[in-house]
Amino acid sequence: MTISIAQLVLDLVRIPSVSGEEAEIASFVESYLKKVCPKAWVKSGDNRVVVALGFNPEEKIPPFTVLAGHLDTVPFNHHPDPEIVGEELIGLGSTDMKGGLGVMLALAEVHAKESLKPTVLVFYDSEEVAYEKNGLRPLLGDHLWLGDAELAVLMEPTGNTIELGCLGTMHGLITFEGVAAHSARPWMGENAIHMAGEFLTKLAAYPIRDVAFGDIVYREVLNATMARGGVSKNVIPDRFEINLNFRFAPDRNGEQATGFLREFLPENATLQVSDIAPSASPSLESPAIQSFCALPGLEIRAKQAWTDVAQFTAMGVPALNFGPGIPELAHRRDESIPVANLEQSYEVLLKFLRPS
Amino acid sequence: MTISIAQLVLDLVRIPSVSGEEAEIASFVESYLKKVCPKAWVKSGDNRVVVALGFNPEEKIPPFTVLAGHLDTVPFNHHPDPEIVGEELIGLGSTDMKGGLGVMLALAEVHAKESLKPTVLVFYDSEEVAYEKNGLRPLLGDHLWLGDAELAVLMEPTGNTIELGCLGTMHGLITFEGVAAHSARPWMGENAIHMAGEFLTKLAAYPIRDVAFGDIVYREVLNATMARGGVSKNVIPDRFEINLNFRFAPDRNGEQATGFLREFLPENATLQVSDIAPSASPSLESPAIQSFCALPGLEIRAKQAWTDVAQFTAMGVPALNFGPGIPELAHRRDESIPVANLEQSYEVLLKFLRPS
Repeated sequence: MTISIAQLVLDLVRIPSVSGEEAEIASFVESYLKKVCPKAWVKSGDNRVVVALGFNPEEKIPPFTVLAGHLDTVPFNHHPDPEIVGEELIGLGSTDMKGGLGVMLALAEVHAKESLKPTVLVFYDSEEVAYEKNGLRPLLGDHLWLGDAELAVLMEPTGNTIELGCLGTMHGLITFEGVAAHSARPWMGENAIHMAGEFLTKLAAYPIRDVAFGDIVYREVLNATMARGGVSKNVIPDRFEINLNFRFAPDRNGEQATGFLREFLPENATLQVSDIAPSASPSLESPAIQSFCALPGLEIRAKQAWTDVAQFTAMGVPALNFGPGIPELAHRRDESIPVANLEQSYEVLLKFLRPS
Repeated sequence: MTISIAQLVLDLVRIPSVSGEEAEIASFVESYLKKVCPKAWVKSGDNRVVVALGFNPEEKIPPFTVLAGHLDTVPFNHHPDPEIVGEELIGLGSTDMKGGLGVMLALAEVHAKESLKPTVLVFYDSEEVAYEKNGLRPLLGDHLWLGDAELAVLMEPTGNTIELGCLGTMHGLITFEGVAAHSARPWMGENAIHMAGEFLTKLAAYPIRDVAFGDIVYREVLNATMARGGVSKNVIPDRFEINLNFRFAPDRNGEQATGFLREFLPENATLQVSDIAPSASPSLESPAIQSFCALPGLEIRAKQAWTDVAQFTAMGVPALNFGPGIPELAHRRDESIPVANLEQSYEVLLKFLRPS
């Protein structure tokens, strides 16, 4: 099986699918599914594909698991011919997350041949861009019955570690406004860059906040990521902007995180919040989560970033991240995935989906 | 006389002469001088013109005064038809400093008709750009005899106030270097923007240093004028750059000012100094300066900016700024000059140049 999943992943990696251009890969996925499980219920459109395996959601909805993955990649940053070299499959999107997509397609093939638990596969577009464009959002709106799932597994690369919940993320643009003047007569103006000193010192001193849910620990962090000010070397700057990225722990929702930022805001500045993506708690009380975490030999930890588990969690579906691929290799020029990762992911999910 | 100077200034304003494109105005100035004082010694080339009035520097050099002005303007920021409306002459370069150039040309015409003190007029290019490009530098190198002048009057717009000496200016690029990381895992990197907080606070608190030469007071000021850091909203920034503009008082030379900046540099950053333009002391001990300052009805103060007086001072020539035009209107879209300013400037200089 390993070789054929790897070949399938290689086929997927060979189809360019930068965010916004997922038509070809969505079509490939749909055709593949119609070939390997011709009786399955399939809905597609807008570069999204939903497949129900083992049941027809228009007739009866039994307890079921969702496996979900995004079809898009970050923009091309390098363009080698994808290939398998030794134990590695090399190419853009191999780790994030066409490895996971290949495992999903391989499981569909098994589903057609033997009796597994009812499963829904969800393929969607535009995950690697702003949250407003995320393709899973309208997909979930079109298939509200997915809110009845017992568990959603987001097949983001985790190196086959179980990563529970996720951090929320938002951006806050802090603007200091001064008054321009000739730089030889600064007392005629007010230097907006100078105004930011105390705030940056406060920010540098602001501690990481560790938030534990049982053994699962999230690290809430707040950082300036961009800064811009001044129009000319000879002019007192009348504007200085700092972009803050707030990665907030699952004990705060987006509204609470915004409230925190407003309190953190210095008195001499304004704040504009954007790109709020919600956090997700680890759902440790969920029987399906407990059951998945009880699978032997798997590490369990917090997801120290934002992923689409937040969208399932917001719908009331317990969700976790579990997928093949090395997170540190995602978005890199030399992105690759160990072939052995694919086999392990496939075996774990097959064990979970086999009736006990 | 007023009307004809104003007409002359209008002709000059109508000739576009953005820095680097002074050929047409240099040619106009040279032709005008050859017409109104056909016997004068003239040297020109590279958009620079030097005219000796009342003597031939190749034969004998008597005590003499230099009047100097730059031919260039800042880039077009607005493009109305220059015109005289009521008491104002409107157009790019009218105040900075074609008003002064018109007064110089009018004085050349008088020089040809009556006996005035020996005078040299110096017209040059590229003052409104980096100091390295300044056209006065090579001109002084080609005419070392100008170093024997008793006084140099820079006809920069001062509203016909005497402005003595000038501040020096330099730029220092302060760079904080950190380590990039995913913004959800900032502890894997080091935030370069956060590193700058204490330095900006120190900079905001750094006081204006008033430096007095008799009644002439310069204000030494140090300001961040530009700041840039970060490559993406989701990445811990590994670089943050701040441009400092140091306007140093005439009690420091460029080397001392650089030394000060190096001491002011925070320990966690590097400094790259550029664009050093020297300061100039007010030369209060010079008889020619004293004589000019004794002219009735003129205010006297420090030049709170850099001008080319520094170049004459460095050659050992006492120099001051005195010209028509409103400094606050320089470089503005609505630049203009009061016509009465031209007349006053002309009358003052004529009084100074008439034999006592």
